[in-house]
Parts: sequence; C-alpha cells; structure tokens
Amino acid sequence: MIIVADNLRITMPAIGRAVERMDPAPIRQMACACREAGARAIDINSGPLSRHPEEKMTFLVRTVQAACDLPLILDTSSPEAMATGLATCSQKATINGVSLAPEKLARILPLARQNDCDIIAYLLRPDGHVPADAAGRMEAAVALFRKCQQAGISPRRLIIDPVVAPLAWQDGNRQNMAVLEVIRTLPDLLGFPVRTIAGLSNLTTGAPDADTRRRYQKAFLPMLAAAGVTMILMNALDPAILRVAEACQNITDGTIFTWQ
Amino acid sequence: MIIVADNLRITMPAIGRAVERMDPAPIRQMACACREAGARAIDINSGPLSRHPEEKMTFLVRTVQAACDLPLILDTSSPEAMATGLATCSQKATINGVSLAPEKLARILPLARQNDCDIIAYLLRPDGHVPADAAGRMEAAVALFRKCQQAGISPRRLIIDPVVAPLAWQDGNRQNMAVLEVIRTLPDLLGFPVRTIAGLSNLTTGAPDADTRRRYQKAFLPMLAAAGVTMILMNALDPAILRVAEACQNITDGTIFTWQ
Repeated sequence: MIIVADNLRITMPAIGRAVERMDPAPIRQMACACREAGARAIDINSGPLSRHPEEKMTFLVRTVQAACDLPLILDTSSPEAMATGLATCSQKATINGVSLAPEKLARILPLARQNDCDIIAYLLRPDGHVPADAAGRMEAAVALFRKCQQAGISPRRLIIDPVVAPLAWQDGNRQNMAVLEVIRTLPDLLGFPVRTIAGLSNLTTGAPDADTRRRYQKAFLPMLAAAGVTMILMNALDPAILRVAEACQNITDGTIFTWQ
Repeated sequence: MIIVADNLRITMPAIGRAVERMDPAPIRQMACACREAGARAIDINSGPLSRHPEEKMTFLVRTVQAACDLPLILDTSSPEAMATGLATCSQKATINGVSLAPEKLARILPLARQNDCDIIAYLLRPDGHVPADAAGRMEAAVALFRKCQQAGISPRRLIIDPVVAPLAWQDGNRQNMAVLEVIRTLPDLLGFPVRTIAGLSNLTTGAPDADTRRRYQKAFLPMLAAAGVTMILMNALDPAILRVAEACQNITDGTIFTWQ
C-alpha cells in the first residue's frame, strides 16, 4: 500500500497563498514534510477553477521537483494545465484523472498516450454522478478499460479510483462497502492485477471535528488495505493515521511479520 | 458486530484468585464493567487445566448471572464442566467450542443437541493444528457443518471461528488474510448466513508491549468488520479499541450513518 500525500492542494490556504505569491518556500516545506512522514508519491492539486492554471501547475511542479524526488501525480481538471505539467516533469508523472465524461475522454486520454504515463480513472457515470452500487462501478471500470484500449493506452497504465463516498451521504456507508467490494474484485473482473487508489479524506467530508474525522479514517483505512488497495491518497502529515497505515501494511503485505 | 468480552478468564490473576477463594466480588465487578463498556455477551473461560473444573464453572456462571443479564458463552475443554455450566445457566448459553478433534465431536456435540443451544466451531484440522490456508479452513467448515447435521444439530446453531493466528507466527499475516477470506466467503460456501466469531487477542500474542498490541488490534479489527464477522471476542475494557469497534459498526452496518 503506497501512501500518496494529498496535502498539496491549492485550496489549502497556506498553499493557495504561496502559489498566488509564487513563493516556493511553503510548498517546498510541505513536500519535504510529506516525504519524511512516509509518503511515496505526492498529488499536486492545482484547483478546479483557478485562474492561470498552466502557470500555477508549472510553478508547483518545478518547486516540488526541486525540493524532493517523490513521484508526482498531477491533479487538475484543466487539460491545458495537465499538458503543461506533464511537459514540466523531469520524471514521468501520473495523470489524475479521467472518467467516462466525454470531454475528459476526448482531452485527457490522448495526454496519457502521448506521455506514455499512468492515469487514474474514476468509476463515475458519464454524467459525472457516482454509480448507485458496486455493479455500476464495475460497469464503469469495464467501459474505461475499453476506452483505454481504443485510445491505444495499455490498460496496465490504469489506476482505478472507485470513489470513496462521504459517510454523511444518505447512502454513504453502503457506497463505501461497494467501494471495498470493487477494489477486491476488479483484478478478477479485468483479468490482470489492476492497481487501485482510494481518497481517504473524502470519507469524512463534513465531519464535525478533527477527532471524529481521524476516528473514521482510522477505521476505514484498514478496510481498504484488506481489500487490497494499491495506493491511499491521504493526509500524510497525520501521525496517528500513518501509524495505522504502517500496521496495516505489516499485516497485509505477505512478507514475514516483525513487531514494529 | 457483537462485542463479546474475553475478560473473564481464569488465567487472569485477579480472576484466578477470586475463583480459588470463591470470592464473587471481582468477578461481578468485571462482568458489570464489560457490560457497561458495551459488551453484548461474555465468554466465561474456566481454564484448560484447572482442578475441579465443574465447581469453578458453576461458581462463575452463578456469579455472572447474579451480576448482569449478558448472554453467556461457556469456554472450557472439560465436557463435564461444560455440561454443568449449561445446566446452571438460567438463559440459554453458547458452547465454546467444538472442532473436528474426534473426542470433541463425541463429547461436545451431544451437549449442543441436548441443550438446543448455539455452538462455536473452530476451523482446525482433526489433529488440532491450524489449516495451512483458506482452502483448509473451508474444508474444515464443510466437515463441521456435516458433523452437526449428522448429530441432529441445525447448522444454524453454528458460530464458526476461523482461528485468528498470532501475527508473530512464521506465516501469521498470511494466515490472517485467509481468516478474512473465510469470513467473507463462508455464507456463500455453506448457503446460509452463517455466523462467525474471531478472537482479536490471539492476533497479538507475544507483542512486546500494550501499545504495540493495541496498535495491531486496532488495525485488524476493521478488517474483520469489513469481512462481515458477526462477533468479536475481545478485551471489552480497552476504550481505544472499543471506539474503533463503534466506528466500524457505524461504517458497516448498513443503516443511515450519523456522526458519533
């Protein structure tokens, strides 16, 4: 289970301010802290509606690359910012992400093929909504698999995100049980050891306080780990959750166990 | 997920002393504390090799029954103590337990039939060893299912214990991944919603300290919950683990989620 830091989001006030001022220090600091805490990749989220997304992405990529050697995941809904970001990366980055939305397929898939890079694919319906159940997610996975093949992208480039639902949604816990089922069964369904990613922070959207948020994330993370998720997108700077992640890894990774 | 307290073990010094002296106070206190903490059943373990097992079991059952109304699980390898304990219970108790060991089948199964009570069945080989993998456990489950039928016991009386392995065993983590798989697939294999139980304390046998023990139990408990385990046999007096159990319940139980 690979920990991917979700801390570098332009919507975080400190990061947003740093990007506005083109001040690399807070970003460098954040990237280094995530790496030291145990993150093995970092998601650079330049925000959904920001102005000058290309410049911002370039600045973020350059700053993080200068600070540490963590693999980068570029997270933007702007195809232009994505293309610029990919071109700026010195090592191969991962695209985050594509879905069955026609404009995503048309503009993001070609970038994955041109750059021959990994791509995160969300199990959403073409209209952008979350499928009602596990079967709906499986259907989306098969459709995305085919779209990749048609676009000349090896399905082994796919990293599937089954979309963790906020628990507070009306059917949030049922949705998340479906997420676990999908992670468990996707490799059989698609016929190869397809990689998966899950965004842990989504789970606790709307939680009343940090303690409650942490409590539910600590309970759901082991469920994801046991289901066999490949990557967890999470707050890499919460030591309590990191300790749970380490214990999960030690229980599930199939190597000889040692107390630690 | 039902929390079953494993705190009432004669091998715990305070409980062992109380039983030797026939002093009900510490036992009463322990039973009440478990109930208040959220346990919904209590396992009475009169020890594997104790002298006068029948008297001890009778004393324990009477004392706990006088203190609280928790359902009882009688945990003894002595068929005589089991028979006496069952006869002493005013409400129907659960037998813990049977396995494919011939002497167990011969002496414990008839007690389950006579008392028309639930019975915990361990997925062990007839020689008492833990099966090497999930397939070995499934085989044991099917064999136990048949033995029950042959003995005139409804398989719906079965509560299957797939035997959590100490992590520190050479293949401990692989074994525990098999445990999760078995819990998940048993209802399909046996064709009815068979109940399961898992002993969480076994996981951390030999842990170097309480913090490490707690850390691994907190990581494995959600894995068991997501696999659909019916009952967890655990230390009901550890608030940190109980809080994880509550969060798991709230995530997995299929009712409308509310923050708590």
